[in-house]
Amino acid sequence: MSERQRIVVIGGVACGPKAAARARRMDPNAEITIIEQGSALSYAGCGMPYYIKGTVSEMRELMCTPVGTPRNASFFRNVKNIEVYTRTRAVSIDREHKLVRAVNLETGEQYEFPYDKLVLATGGYSVMPPIPGIRLDYVFGLREPRNASAIRDAISSGSIKRVVIVGGGLIGLEMSEALVERGLEVDVVEMMPHVLPGLLDVETAAFLTKHIVAKGVNVYTGEKVIRLEGDLGAVNRVITEKRELPADMVLIAVGVRPRSDLAREAGLEIGPHGGILVNEWMQTSDPDIYAGGDCVENKHLITGEWAYAPLGSTANKHGRVIGTNIAGGDEVFPGILGTAIVKVFDYNVGRTGLTEQEARQRGYNVVTCLAPGPDKPHYYPTAQTLLIKLIADADTRRLLGIQAVGPGEADKRVDVAATALRFKATVDDVATLDLTYAPPYSQALDNLIHAANIVRNKIDGLAESISPQEVKAKMDRGDDFILLDVRSPAEYEAVRIEDPRVRLIPLGRLRPSLDDLPRDKEIIPFCKISLRGYEAYRILKGAGFTNVRFMDGGIVAWPYELKQGA
Amino acid sequence: MSERQRIVVIGGVACGPKAAARARRMDPNAEITIIEQGSALSYAGCGMPYYIKGTVSEMRELMCTPVGTPRNASFFRNVKNIEVYTRTRAVSIDREHKLVRAVNLETGEQYEFPYDKLVLATGGYSVMPPIPGIRLDYVFGLREPRNASAIRDAISSGSIKRVVIVGGGLIGLEMSEALVERGLEVDVVEMMPHVLPGLLDVETAAFLTKHIVAKGVNVYTGEKVIRLEGDLGAVNRVITEKRELPADMVLIAVGVRPRSDLAREAGLEIGPHGGILVNEWMQTSDPDIYAGGDCVENKHLITGEWAYAPLGSTANKHGRVIGTNIAGGDEVFPGILGTAIVKVFDYNVGRTGLTEQEARQRGYNVVTCLAPGPDKPHYYPTAQTLLIKLIADADTRRLLGIQAVGPGEADKRVDVAATALRFKATVDDVATLDLTYAPPYSQALDNLIHAANIVRNKIDGLAESISPQEVKAKMDRGDDFILLDVRSPAEYEAVRIEDPRVRLIPLGRLRPSLDDLPRDKEIIPFCKISLRGYEAYRILKGAGFTNVRFMDGGIVAWPYELKQGA
Repeated sequence: MSERQRIVVIGGVACGPKAAARARRMDPNAEITIIEQGSALSYAGCGMPYYIKGTVSEMRELMCTPVGTPRNASFFRNVKNIEVYTRTRAVSIDREHKLVRAVNLETGEQYEFPYDKLVLATGGYSVMPPIPGIRLDYVFGLREPRNASAIRDAISSGSIKRVVIVGGGLIGLEMSEALVERGLEVDVVEMMPHVLPGLLDVETAAFLTKHIVAKGVNVYTGEKVIRLEGDLGAVNRVITEKRELPADMVLIAVGVRPRSDLAREAGLEIGPHGGILVNEWMQTSDPDIYAGGDCVENKHLITGEWAYAPLGSTANKHGRVIGTNIAGGDEVFPGILGTAIVKVFDYNVGRTGLTEQEARQRGYNVVTCLAPGPDKPHYYPTAQTLLIKLIADADTRRLLGIQAVGPGEADKRVDVAATALRFKATVDDVATLDLTYAPPYSQALDNLIHAANIVRNKIDGLAESISPQEVKAKMDRGDDFILLDVRSPAEYEAVRIEDPRVRLIPLGRLRPSLDDLPRDKEIIPFCKISLRGYEAYRILKGAGFTNVRFMDGGIVAWPYELKQGA
Repeated sequence: MSERQRIVVIGGVACGPKAAARARRMDPNAEITIIEQGSALSYAGCGMPYYIKGTVSEMRELMCTPVGTPRNASFFRNVKNIEVYTRTRAVSIDREHKLVRAVNLETGEQYEFPYDKLVLATGGYSVMPPIPGIRLDYVFGLREPRNASAIRDAISSGSIKRVVIVGGGLIGLEMSEALVERGLEVDVVEMMPHVLPGLLDVETAAFLTKHIVAKGVNVYTGEKVIRLEGDLGAVNRVITEKRELPADMVLIAVGVRPRSDLAREAGLEIGPHGGILVNEWMQTSDPDIYAGGDCVENKHLITGEWAYAPLGSTANKHGRVIGTNIAGGDEVFPGILGTAIVKVFDYNVGRTGLTEQEARQRGYNVVTCLAPGPDKPHYYPTAQTLLIKLIADADTRRLLGIQAVGPGEADKRVDVAATALRFKATVDDVATLDLTYAPPYSQALDNLIHAANIVRNKIDGLAESISPQEVKAKMDRGDDFILLDVRSPAEYEAVRIEDPRVRLIPLGRLRPSLDDLPRDKEIIPFCKISLRGYEAYRILKGAGFTNVRFMDGGIVAWPYELKQGA
């Protein structure tokens, strides 16, 4: 090692510059170099959809510090004393001689960068599936600033009327909003059975889809895109397994994969999702090479499995840990929980931990609830609905995951749950958290606490429920049962589930009506959000009815058709 | 014990009805009775300021369920099978014979209610200090619905122009906003040195006070009210130690105390703050008597001390625990963290855990930071400033408390911190939480994570800082030092600290200017939020300057006068 430690960082977007800047603050003497193949540094990739939507008016805003200083090579040199090579691609790592070979993409000039410590922050790339037509004009992936500019320019030109988004994941849905706001017709095609697969379960996805569809987006799920077709080199239709969709533009948002070729070729250990494997210190299988950001896999804090979850937040945390460690410090990154959030039209959609499906696959004794409700007291004017799904393990009472969807404040509840999950909290812990309460912020018992209480009741055998999906399946099968609506007649008149098995007995009249209800038939009470539905369930159980379950989430969580008005 | 267990609940606002309803769901056969001295049940006391402000248009909304059903005696009877006696005061508890003696306040009729389990949910009361004039007309406390109605009626009559609020605590400040919104002139007089004493430290209180004053409220702190004076029985001025304030109405908001006389007279154990003492099961010193809500003290989860923190959220949690336990279940309430939040004009003001002052009093090796910043990326249009103060213990690295003040989303950060505190998280844990990130919700590194990182740097000796208050004191003392503004010239022109010791060297020009700075004088760099100020500090330290500290929080957290424009 030379007297002044040589630190080379490959990748200049999120993790790389963070690691470099942190290393500089720790070690004023190190020689620090960043190699970046693009022309932009430290840009806010997550802001791209908002640039396309027009929320962010200039791409420049995504490239500058909050006070408007461009984060370019001279910024890094002057402020951080860090040398930056842009438009320069690292082509190989010579671990034996500890040097990185690189080439300037403009001039073809070749460089060798010797290092004492090397940081790989090579990021991820947007998967472009190998379907016919993928290279037609007006077919875009979404990771690069130049694509965002091209998409916005094309929209601004006025020649684009219809856009098909392939992929109903985070970026696909974020883009659907951006494009509808720009006045375009938008179709989303998702191969999996519901949108945000892997992030949401079927009930929360159905609740979200209803909103997206109401906003005018056509959503086709469980449907594969077979090929793209065009005229004169430009795309003009998307052919799926089931239909043909006209399209002036196609956005491909089927996923992100780690850019790990360089590491793989250098013989570093690669994980099951193709990402570079690192230990808690963000060190690869070569102790002098660190890696972080979208090119690595993370340890999942609940399952202990490797997970690929590329996020700007995680990349920044990685960068700090790496910067500390390469400068001689000692800092660890514990792992992730799969936390994610996205704004889709008026809905906030967040999740963390395991979905019900993921929890079942791993053998937990799963218990869940659907808890919709206002996120503030009903009398407070900014109150909005939020649907929470909690997933817990009945054996240990541990919280396993949460999904929160709706116009209400999902981010707060997911963040609290992510913090609770980090410390292996039980639902009993969650239900007694000392969270903030005042009318502008939450109900006296926050939605998350309320949801935890429902799960506690279920684990304790006080609350047996049935999901809207199961009720619908029973209806479709022609099962005989009573779907007991315990809302008020006025609520019933306004909106209701139209089915001969539905019976209206307002909660206040249930106790005197018990003799009118059959004891040999299943009874499924519900209300607007199934708070009164649960109360009805307890009344029926208390009166000796045995075949009773309340419908989880009530009419708010019912994603199927509802009859409105008389 | 009779075959049907007899449960008597004294108090019908928050904890009492919750305990009764929970007990009913657990035990369908119990005889459950609620005794309430007021005429209203289960009303939303926390909504009163919003009723006075006009946000909530009808008192009725605070008295009803979300679907508009009044929570009156017949609601409790029909829905919950619970008997309610309103306008009925419990006058004594005969523990030997297990009965409660009560009197109907309308008819004078006397009752005896035998119980197997008794629940005390007698609430708190607004302290009316024994100063001359306290019983004049138009002097109001704020706990009772009838006071809220009287205040609103008086305002609506148009005869009220000036209001003095005695007490700058949660309710006092909430009311100051409500009254200004109603077009009144408002003075707040607080005996302690700053507003929200006990909830905030001096820096965050100063930041908040600046906002309140900008909204037109006169704030007099460190000033005691001596007496109230009036004409013809109605108040018309407030005399403090230092001035006379004209007033058509006076609101007394100096604090809430537990209503624990009944318990005290029955010989139950009472705590240091006058509240009833209960164990984790919410059981008093008599195992058949439970107590919860604003009449009890709580265990503080950090200090282990008894604390009095009356809140609707806590009362509801108590109610559930009591309801479970009196019906034969087993549930515990772990304690509180002193979490609180209040909206004051455009600012959200939240806190949890210990203040710096509280932590120092208890002998912790305290380290703090002031971290202001936008709560979303600077390019996202709804981004708002939030000032976070974190308090931690340098020895154990444990988080001890947080204060969050500003137009940004304080509630989310306080809730996450409250969850982290519950699990004795370190600042390292907090800094690596997997919180939600997308531009509409937060920065890539959330404000809380950023604050935790600053504290980590301080504990690790990488960041020595000085508070704005200490800098001001140095200035006032006439100390010689350089207050190094490292912002851009444009920022400096717009707004700056006007003092001969201030020197402007934009961060990008600092490295080449190092030779121009004296090595024998203290240098205190700062910027807008002291991110660049910290960077400058690291540059100076790296260059061998020894007498350097950055100013915590930068110009945003500077609560003193600033010079604007040329």
